[in-house]
Amino acid sequence: MPAHPPRQFHLNAFLMNAGHHDAAWRHPRTQPERVTDLTYFQELARTAERGRLDSLFLADGLTLWSNARHNAVGGFEPLTLLSALAVATEHIGLIATVSTTFNEPYHVARKFASLDHLSGGRAGWNIVTSGNVAEARNFGLDEHPDHALRYERAAEFVDVARLLWDSWTDGAPVVDRARGVYTEEGAVAPVGHRGAHFRVDGPLNVQRPPQGHPLLVQAGSSEDGREFAARYAEAVFTAQQTLADGQTFYKDLKSRLARHGRRPDEVRILPGICPVIGATEAEARALEAELTALQVPEYGLQQLSGMLGTDLTGLPLDGPLPELPGESAINGNKSRFTLVADLARRERLTIRELIARLGGGRGHRVFAGTPEQIADQLEEWFTSGAADGFNIMPPHLPGGLEDFVDHVVPLLQRRGLFRTEYVGRTLRDHYGLERPAGRSAPAA
Amino acid sequence: MPAHPPRQFHLNAFLMNAGHHDAAWRHPRTQPERVTDLTYFQELARTAERGRLDSLFLADGLTLWSNARHNAVGGFEPLTLLSALAVATEHIGLIATVSTTFNEPYHVARKFASLDHLSGGRAGWNIVTSGNVAEARNFGLDEHPDHALRYERAAEFVDVARLLWDSWTDGAPVVDRARGVYTEEGAVAPVGHRGAHFRVDGPLNVQRPPQGHPLLVQAGSSEDGREFAARYAEAVFTAQQTLADGQTFYKDLKSRLARHGRRPDEVRILPGICPVIGATEAEARALEAELTALQVPEYGLQQLSGMLGTDLTGLPLDGPLPELPGESAINGNKSRFTLVADLARRERLTIRELIARLGGGRGHRVFAGTPEQIADQLEEWFTSGAADGFNIMPPHLPGGLEDFVDHVVPLLQRRGLFRTEYVGRTLRDHYGLERPAGRSAPAA
Ligand SMILES: Cc1cc2nc3c(=O)[nH]c(=O)nc-3n(C[C@H](O)[C@H](O)[C@H](O)COP(=O)(O)O)c2cc1C
Ligand SMILES: Cc1cc2nc3c(=O)[nH]c(=O)nc-3n(C[C@H](O)[C@H](O)[C@H](O)COP(=O)(O)O)c2cc1C
Repeated sequence: MPAHPPRQFHLNAFLMNAGHHDAAWRHPRTQPERVTDLTYFQELARTAERGRLDSLFLADGLTLWSNARHNAVGGFEPLTLLSALAVATEHIGLIATVSTTFNEPYHVARKFASLDHLSGGRAGWNIVTSGNVAEARNFGLDEHPDHALRYERAAEFVDVARLLWDSWTDGAPVVDRARGVYTEEGAVAPVGHRGAHFRVDGPLNVQRPPQGHPLLVQAGSSEDGREFAARYAEAVFTAQQTLADGQTFYKDLKSRLARHGRRPDEVRILPGICPVIGATEAEARALEAELTALQVPEYGLQQLSGMLGTDLTGLPLDGPLPELPGESAINGNKSRFTLVADLARRERLTIRELIARLGGGRGHRVFAGTPEQIADQLEEWFTSGAADGFNIMPPHLPGGLEDFVDHVVPLLQRRGLFRTEYVGRTLRDHYGLERPAGRSAPAA
Repeated sequence: MPAHPPRQFHLNAFLMNAGHHDAAWRHPRTQPERVTDLTYFQELARTAERGRLDSLFLADGLTLWSNARHNAVGGFEPLTLLSALAVATEHIGLIATVSTTFNEPYHVARKFASLDHLSGGRAGWNIVTSGNVAEARNFGLDEHPDHALRYERAAEFVDVARLLWDSWTDGAPVVDRARGVYTEEGAVAPVGHRGAHFRVDGPLNVQRPPQGHPLLVQAGSSEDGREFAARYAEAVFTAQQTLADGQTFYKDLKSRLARHGRRPDEVRILPGICPVIGATEAEARALEAELTALQVPEYGLQQLSGMLGTDLTGLPLDGPLPELPGESAINGNKSRFTLVADLARRERLTIRELIARLGGGRGHRVFAGTPEQIADQLEEWFTSGAADGFNIMPPHLPGGLEDFVDHVVPLLQRRGLFRTEYVGRTLRDHYGLERPAGRSAPAA
C-alpha cells in the first residue's frame, strides 16, 4: 500500500426484501418467498463481500412500513439478522438502523457492543429518529413525538451510548487468576448519567467493543438532522436527486463540522443510488419500464401519501399533486417530503409519473444504464464534491446486486476508485476512520 | 419410533461465561479470556448439539450482575449471540432470557420472531421480570418496580406478544405475482391492544414464526411467579435444593394448570443442576473442593447480600447469618431469597459455608459424583415426580459440558431416558409440545 493511497469510494450494499423497487417482488428474477430465509441473505452477503463492499446496510421501521398486501415484507429484524450474517462473512461491515425514539440507550448500546464483538469489529449503527406515527402507535403513543424533540432525545441517547461503550477501559480484563482479579479497580466504572431524557447508572455489561464504538452512521437530512450528523455521525446516508442538490448538501454538511471541532474528512457522505443495470442502455431502460409496468398504483399512492404526510386516496392518478403544506408542517421525515415535493414541481409530474419515479428508490436517485454509464455517474458525483461513497440500492435482488458486483465494481477498481482487496479488519478500517480512544485505565 | 415413545428427559445446556461456579474462571481448565469470543460459544454449542441436548439456555441481566473485579463477565447479549449460534448449529434449541420489566412487547415479539425464522423454528423465550434495583437504575428508575406489578406487566406483555405473533396468519404470503397480491386481505391484521400497561396497534412487521410462537419458558418461583407460569409457560426453570422441595414445587405447579384449562403435560418443569463430575467420587469431591478454595470471599459476600436483599459487608465469615426479613419484604427474587434463607437455617451454615454452598449454582443444586451417580440423581428426580428435565449448569466450561455430554448423556441414553437422535426439527418438537394454532385465514 502506498503511503498516501488515492482517495477511494465507500460502497454499502443496502439490502431490501426482493429489491428496492416497489414492484421488484413481481419480477421473475426475484425471490419474494425468501424474505424470511436466512440463506437468501447469506447469499446476498457473500455476493457483497465478493465485491469487497464496505458493508451491508439494513434500514428499519418499527411498524409494517408498507402494505403487506402489495409488497414482499415481514422479514428479519436487523440486529438479529446481522448477528447471523456475521458468521457467514469475514470482512464486510454490518450496519443496522435503530431508532432512538422508541428504544432505550442501555439496550441499544449493549446490542451493538455485542454485535461488534461477534463480528470482530464490523458493527455500524445507522441512527434514526423514526418517521412514522404508526411506529408511535406500537409503543403506547397516539402521536409521533415532535421532530425537534426526537433529535434532542437522539443526541442524549448517543451521549449515553458512548459513555456506556467507554465504561470498560480497553483491555480491562487482566484475568489474573492467581490474585483472583478479573479487572482492576476502576477499569469498569459507572457512567452516572442524569439528563433530560435518560438516567442511566451503568456500567455496560458488555466489554468495550473491538472498534471502541461501532461506526456511527446517520440518516435524516432536515436542518436538525444535519446538525445532529455534524455532531455525531461518521457517515451520513442521504437521498439526493440531482448532482447540484448532492453538491449543496455535501458542502453544507461538511461546513458544519468545524463548529464541532471536527475535520471535513471525519464524516463520509453517502447518497443512495438505485442502479438499473443493462448490457446496453436500451436493455437498462427496458428493465426500468418493465418494473414500472408492474407497479400497483394503489400501493404507490399509499406510499406517496406517507412521504408527503398528505392523504392522496381517490385523487386522479393522471392529475397533478394537490396543494401541499410547507416542510414546517411535516413531523415525519422532513427532508424526504421536500425532496419529493420539489421533484414533482420541478418536473411537473402527474401523480402516476411521480409514483413511477419513486418506485425504484423511494426518493433516492434511480439511474438506468450500462455498467460503464453507472460507473461514470458514481465517479462524477465522487469527483465533483457530491459524495464520498454510495449506498447501493439494487432495484431487484439477488440479480441487481450480482450485476453491480460483477460488472460495475471491476470498472471502479480499474479506475482506482475502489479497493481490490480488504486491507484492514474492522468497519472503521474500511472507512479509514479512527478508533475512538476510551477512558484511560486508572493508575495501578 | 414406537407409537408411544417412553417418557424422556429434556436437557438444556445453560451456558455461563467460564462456567457456573463463581470461581470457575480461576481454574486452569477454563478460558475466561474468551467470554467475548464467538468461537468459544460456537464450540460449546456444538458440544451440546453433539449430546443431542434440547437447547442452549442463556440467562440475562440488564446490569453488570456481578462484580467485574472478581468474575469473568461482560460477554454477549443473548439475542445477538443466539442469532449467531443459530448458524453454527442445526438442531439445538436457542433459549434467551428477556425481561418484561424494562422492554417493550413490540421489540421483544419481533426479535424472537426473527430468531425463530433465522433458526428454522428453534427459538425459546425465558420470561423473567428482573431481580435487581441496579437494572431499574439503567432505565431511568430509582427503585425496582414492585414485584406484583412486575408480574402484572409480564402477563399483559406476553398477551401482546402472542397477539403480535398471530397478526400474520400462517402461510400469509400467497406471493401472487400476476395479481400483484403478496398477502390476501385480512391475512395480516392489526392487533389493536389497549391495556393497563401497553397500547399496541400492530401488526408485527415479521411474518408468523415457524413455531407459531417461540417456546415460552419462565423462571421465577414465588407465588406470583407460579401463577404466571401456570397461565403462560410451557417450560419452567426453577432452583430446588432437595428432592422433597422439588417434588413439592412440581406438584404445586402442575396442580395449578387445570384452573387455566391446561393439562399437566403442557408444562415441562426443569430444575437447575450443577454437576461436578469426576471419574471417581473422590475426584469429583476434590474438584469441588478445588473450586471452593478459589472463591474470593469478598465476592461471595456481595452475591449473597444481593440474594438476601441484606447488606452483609463486614460481618464475620465464620459466624451465622444475621436475622433476616420475611419473604414479603423482598422485592427482587423472592423464591431465591427463601431458598437461601431456608438452606442456611436447615443446615446451620456459617456465612463462609453458605458462600461455598452457593458458589456452584447460586442456589441451584450442586451435585458432585461420578457420571453414574449423576445419572442416578437425574433419574431419581425424573421418576419420582420432581422434574421433567433439567437445566444443566456445568461448574466449569468447556470441560464440564464435555464431561456431561461424553460421560453422562450416554448413560441416560442407555437407560432409555434421553434421545439418541433428534427426531423433529423445531424446539417445540424436541419438547414434544404443540405448535399454537394461529388466527384462521379470512375466507377468500
Ligand atoms: C436517506 C434516509 C434514510 C432513512 N432511513 C430510515 C430508516 O431506515 N428508518 C427510520 O426510522 N428512519 C429513516 N430515516 C430517517 C427518519 O425518517 C428520520 O430520523 C426522521 O424522520 C427525520 O428525518 P429528517 O431529518 O429528514 O426530517 C431516513 C432518512 C433519510 C434521509
Ligand atoms: C431459576 C431462576 C432463574 C432466573 N433467571 C433469571 C434471569 O436470568 N434474569 C432475570 O432477570 N431474572 C431471573 N430470574 C427471575 C427473576 O429474578 C424474577 O423474574 C423475579 O425477581 C421474580 O422471581 P420470583 O418469582 O422468584 O420472586 C430467575 C428466577 C429463577 C427462579
